[in-house]
Amino acid sequence: MEIFTHISDVKNYIHVKKIIGREIGFVPTMGALHEGHLSLIRASKNKELLTTASIFVNPAQFGPNEDFNKYPRPIEEDIELLKSVNCDVLFLPSVEEMYPEKAAVQMTMPLYTQKYEGEHRKGHFEGVMLVVAKLFNIVSPDVAFFGQKDFQQCAVVKQMVKDLSFPVKIEIIPTVREADGLAMSSRNRYLSAEERKKAVGIYQTLVYTKGLVQHEKNVENLIRHAYIYIEKFGFTQIDYIDIVQADTLQTLHIAEKENNPVMLITARCGTTRLLDNMYLYEN
Amino acid sequence: MEIFTHISDVKNYIHVKKIIGREIGFVPTMGALHEGHLSLIRASKNKELLTTASIFVNPAQFGPNEDFNKYPRPIEEDIELLKSVNCDVLFLPSVEEMYPEKAAVQMTMPLYTQKYEGEHRKGHFEGVMLVVAKLFNIVSPDVAFFGQKDFQQCAVVKQMVKDLSFPVKIEIIPTVREADGLAMSSRNRYLSAEERKKAVGIYQTLVYTKGLVQHEKNVENLIRHAYIYIEKFGFTQIDYIDIVQADTLQTLHIAEKENNPVMLITARCGTTRLLDNMYLYEN
Repeated sequence: MEIFTHISDVKNYIHVKKIIGREIGFVPTMGALHEGHLSLIRASKNKELLTTASIFVNPAQFGPNEDFNKYPRPIEEDIELLKSVNCDVLFLPSVEEMYPEKAAVQMTMPLYTQKYEGEHRKGHFEGVMLVVAKLFNIVSPDVAFFGQKDFQQCAVVKQMVKDLSFPVKIEIIPTVREADGLAMSSRNRYLSAEERKKAVGIYQTLVYTKGLVQHEKNVENLIRHAYIYIEKFGFTQIDYIDIVQADTLQTLHIAEKENNPVMLITARCGTTRLLDNMYLYEN
Repeated sequence: MEIFTHISDVKNYIHVKKIIGREIGFVPTMGALHEGHLSLIRASKNKELLTTASIFVNPAQFGPNEDFNKYPRPIEEDIELLKSVNCDVLFLPSVEEMYPEKAAVQMTMPLYTQKYEGEHRKGHFEGVMLVVAKLFNIVSPDVAFFGQKDFQQCAVVKQMVKDLSFPVKIEIIPTVREADGLAMSSRNRYLSAEERKKAVGIYQTLVYTKGLVQHEKNVENLIRHAYIYIEKFGFTQIDYIDIVQADTLQTLHIAEKENNPVMLITARCGTTRLLDNMYLYEN
């Protein structure tokens, strides 16, 4: 695996590969890799793309009271994991390399970010858009892979690519789960043993609602039942439960198959925020 | 000259040219071409770039009370002019092709746009950034050419390219002037004969200040003298006169050579806004 820390070096390397006809697959990450990330690498490798991962804990997407400094950075382990799935290239820039000065340009997408993670993490998606746009311009991927777990992020990135005509195909890869159903996340390592047990309640509530939607299409009722159901797991706080149209993230009133409804849940176990989502009609 | 109206067609054409090793020069315009635009095309041709112009009157960069509908669109004449300077490719999209729906993403750059054109034309630079980013992604130029006349636009585009690592080199080409010094502009055609005579006062004030700066470095004094000097030309309104640092557009107090000061003037002849600028120490 080739490892580059400088923008100019990774650009040059990829430029040469593109000239000889290689197509580039890109998996942007913040490191602390788990099976979810590796499934993105595998999806890229399966398409025979020259597979480039980035590891960059992007300060622009953390709020002032968030865990930027304590976000896990097990870089040696991450490199071994990337090698184990035959990742071709790792781009591993420093903050100074990515932001030699604070960016003057700001990207926003109010229609997609006023609720959910955008509401609870002010400035988060603005930081995501900035770094993703920048990474796309550096890596110039033909295909970029994102995990469905960060559902709102997927919608924001897809819309940004469409609005700005980025020459990148976005592939969303289904969430990888632990044996009990908990969505894999770099933040799961913050959970105490007791919290880890409760955590599965999010997944179970999603599955419960997916069953319920066969008989009950009213979104208000579905959400009310979900709140009642999730209560017993003893989360510290439920940040939100909602059912939205998958592409636009607009709230639905009726959860019919034609609307492609997705349930979004974010809840806290202690101080750890856990996100998950599920298409209510997928196979 | 190849003319494309669809994004996919121009992308495919350029993609093939890049594969065989051609480098792309890009001149984005809103049409109503004049010698200023043609100088950009010539600059690209002189570098032996496959030279692509775009003509797109971008609704996103016009305010609600501005001249989007009456902006001149002499497309047959523009095509002949482009052919006359051996432009290789023209991208001529419709509004529907560029914005099938209103873009959800918004780009801003408050540090660079709160004053001058950004203050007088709310939303203007947001629209410029949106369309320039989109056109860069469509045309994927190696070098893009902009005219110095729109000085603030040049600064905004350069900063956007830097912040987002667009793989594009920006070249700023000096303003082309009429015989009397008036900066060429698509909007000059709106001027009555009488207004046309007054219009040269902007250029003359810039030249006057460039002379004065040899003896007087205090920016406040220079601007005061410029207001007194320009008064005699009888402009309807002076929108602003200022002296700024060329790259950051920050106001200067002392106009010394090391600060690379530029004087910006925008004034109205009747209802026509005329912009011009000059480096106070250039050769």
